[in-house]
Amino acid sequence: MMSESILQKDHPRILIPELCKLFFTNGWVTGTGGGISIKYNNQIFIAPSGVQKERMEPDDIFVQDMNGADIEVPPYEKNLSKSQCTPIFMCSYIERNAGAVIHIHSPELVKLCLLNPENELRISGLEMIKGIYNEEKGRFYDNDEEVIIPIIENSKYERDLVDTFQLALMKYPSTSAVVVRNHGMYVWGSDWKSAKTQCECYEYVFNIMVFKKINNL
Amino acid sequence: MMSESILQKDHPRILIPELCKLFFTNGWVTGTGGGISIKYNNQIFIAPSGVQKERMEPDDIFVQDMNGADIEVPPYEKNLSKSQCTPIFMCSYIERNAGAVIHIHSPELVKLCLLNPENELRISGLEMIKGIYNEEKGRFYDNDEEVIIPIIENSKYERDLVDTFQLALMKYPSTSAVVVRNHGMYVWGSDWKSAKTQCECYEYVFNIMVFKKINNL
Amino acid sequence: MMSESILQKDHPRILIPELCKLFFTNGWVTGTGGGISIKYNNQIFIAPSGVQKERMEPDDIFVQDMNGADIEVPPYEKNLSKSQCTPIFMCSYIERNAGAVIHIHSPELVKLCLLNPENELRISGLEMIKGIYNEEKGRFYDNDEEVIIPIIENSKYERDLVDTFQLALMKYPSTSAVVVRNHGMYVWGSDWKSAKTQCECYEYVFNIMVFKKINNL
Amino acid sequence: MMSESILQKDHPRILIPELCKLFFTNGWVTGTGGGISIKYNNQIFIAPSGVQKERMEPDDIFVQDMNGADIEVPPYEKNLSKSQCTPIFMCSYIERNAGAVIHIHSPELVKLCLLNPENELRISGLEMIKGIYNEEKGRFYDNDEEVIIPIIENSKYERDLVDTFQLALMKYPSTSAVVVRNHGMYVWGSDWKSAKTQCECYEYVFNIMVFKKINNL
Repeated sequence: MMSESILQKDHPRILIPELCKLFFTNGWVTGTGGGISIKYNNQIFIAPSGVQKERMEPDDIFVQDMNGADIEVPPYEKNLSKSQCTPIFMCSYIERNAGAVIHIHSPELVKLCLLNPENELRISGLEMIKGIYNEEKGRFYDNDEEVIIPIIENSKYERDLVDTFQLALMKYPSTSAVVVRNHGMYVWGSDWKSAKTQCECYEYVFNIMVFKKINNL
Repeated sequence: MMSESILQKDHPRILIPELCKLFFTNGWVTGTGGGISIKYNNQIFIAPSGVQKERMEPDDIFVQDMNGADIEVPPYEKNLSKSQCTPIFMCSYIERNAGAVIHIHSPELVKLCLLNPENELRISGLEMIKGIYNEEKGRFYDNDEEVIIPIIENSKYERDLVDTFQLALMKYPSTSAVVVRNHGMYVWGSDWKSAKTQCECYEYVFNIMVFKKINNL
Repeated sequence: MMSESILQKDHPRILIPELCKLFFTNGWVTGTGGGISIKYNNQIFIAPSGVQKERMEPDDIFVQDMNGADIEVPPYEKNLSKSQCTPIFMCSYIERNAGAVIHIHSPELVKLCLLNPENELRISGLEMIKGIYNEEKGRFYDNDEEVIIPIIENSKYERDLVDTFQLALMKYPSTSAVVVRNHGMYVWGSDWKSAKTQCECYEYVFNIMVFKKINNL
Repeated sequence: MMSESILQKDHPRILIPELCKLFFTNGWVTGTGGGISIKYNNQIFIAPSGVQKERMEPDDIFVQDMNGADIEVPPYEKNLSKSQCTPIFMCSYIERNAGAVIHIHSPELVKLCLLNPENELRISGLEMIKGIYNEEKGRFYDNDEEVIIPIIENSKYERDLVDTFQLALMKYPSTSAVVVRNHGMYVWGSDWKSAKTQCECYEYVFNIMVFKKINNL
């Protein structure tokens, strides 16, 4: 049941399907991969699990409060379940006061992980890091600074990532993203615009990093 | 003649043209290559042969029963013939109880074949294999398992692939796909969603596999 | 002035802008590059020169007869001139009885030229050559045959390519395409569908050829 | 407030959002990067700073005169600020009598910079340089000429690029573009069509140059 007004084009029930369609085109959420959550009027909107991300409809979205109690769920006959990323989404809301969290399966990032066995990514010397937010300093990076992003190891189930995700948040107070090796990335921001545009900046710099590594630059 | 109601957006006469347009954009069915078939109410819907896949219309689709007898055919003046993949489509329906079968000419896969002279592909260590269905075990793969996909040799005509295709099905009871070397792939699933999203997962992991092989990773 | 009825969606005044928009998305005609011509009711429709190919309008198209005499021209105030490819388009109509000719600036092909100093391209072992038409034999290639495409050297002006283009047609009676080194390609067919889908097949195999060459396969 | 009529589809308030959407699709202005300005009736239209370039609306655009005095600004509640590229846009209008200026964060160009430590790019031997305008000679390049594009070093803020940008204009009177290392490029032309199509030609040749360099061609 969708009780609230969704006339606004920036309402999560409109935005989430629209953004997922864009992310699908980007190659970030193909094969039902990835997910997204947006906080709105203190309610948490969450995309369903295991669906084609480019075909989502407004009433496919789950709504819960900050304690995880359901406020609205999709129609019963749609047989949908909440994103398996929910525990990590909530962790970003609680630990980082995020306004939106995006999970993507970027192939570019998986390639970068394959080239980088370390447990963090270090990026510098590119203009586009000016679009990445330093959560500790409360401002965007300068282009002469270094961005460090933690990599955590993948697990069998998304829910088993919560502990290492939380550790990464503590150890890297500046970061607005956590990479899951050979899997993808979680990115959050103060609102959906920040989460989305940071995703684009990360994707951009990962693409350049892969290029540098395979060409020994 | 199209007798049945096609008001539903998930009817094969609507879905097949729509999916083919998407696959064209993906680069999977350019140059009239590829094909698709969907089972619906125990009828088999099949795209026509040798047409521009992004310009298909609802009444271009052939409908036959499980024995191959025509139920509906496109208007005579359209001069269309049934997909040359039909024998392989039917083989997937009969041997694997598929709900839909997709044939794509993925360039990424052709590149992977060129790098891999073996008669199977082995994939592991990637999150996206969780979107691939293990037909033998009746569940999706875990991300710590290995997916093995058979490669059969190409033939002059699509119809001559049936025997080796059938052998591959017998030898690889887990697989939901058969690769045809330097040609493309057949992927099936319990319904069109499963066939399509598995296609996307295969394409994703093939892209990473090519990257690994050319960079000796 | 546009006198003829253009209600049909396959009329060249509708098709040419639509195809050019698609080719632009393919990266084949960016920067005003490339061109297209379609024969219709024995009239030759030709795109204008030096315009943004994705923004063409129905009345931007020139129409001439087989002798080159203008039948219809775009409105005077649009200040358009006929494609500089016109002499080569006409050569394909006259020498090969083409129904449509496409000129694209494929970057993939330019890369292949840079890797291949010879004056022809030889392609074999790929399913997609089944979509290429053998003009001499009057049938499509089998996938176990070899396709040979002539490469001619680039000239300062498009019009200066006519002589070598004509020589290539004579020397390669099978070919449905002529490559211009570090520049692009002319592809023709019995109608626009044949020219377009062959373009797609050539682009596909060129992409694989580049991959093979840079990886020594 | 938008006082002027924007009925024409080539009005900057229509064109700027439309072009930015296209550039976003090209990967040139993701993550709020890049910018664009168009001169129209002697007024300078400028996109806002730090916004999602694919979601711009007609009334998001700033209008100023050639002296930098505001003529029209976006609604107060939108909380927008003028593009940080404005000083460089104005420099192109004043020094080169440009009709439009485009700033893109092309990843292809960043890769080329990483491969090319020199302070200029030299391009030759490609047909597509015929779409690049030689500002000194007042004509397009021939395909047998060499195009030389200056590279300036990046700075912390866009505004600090003005001096070196101006020096590059003086030292390279032929150029219609200035590259900012590991950052992007400014391209201008006599009107928006010229700026845009030159952008496409530069992007095309940069892509080929990267290919040549990594393959030692």
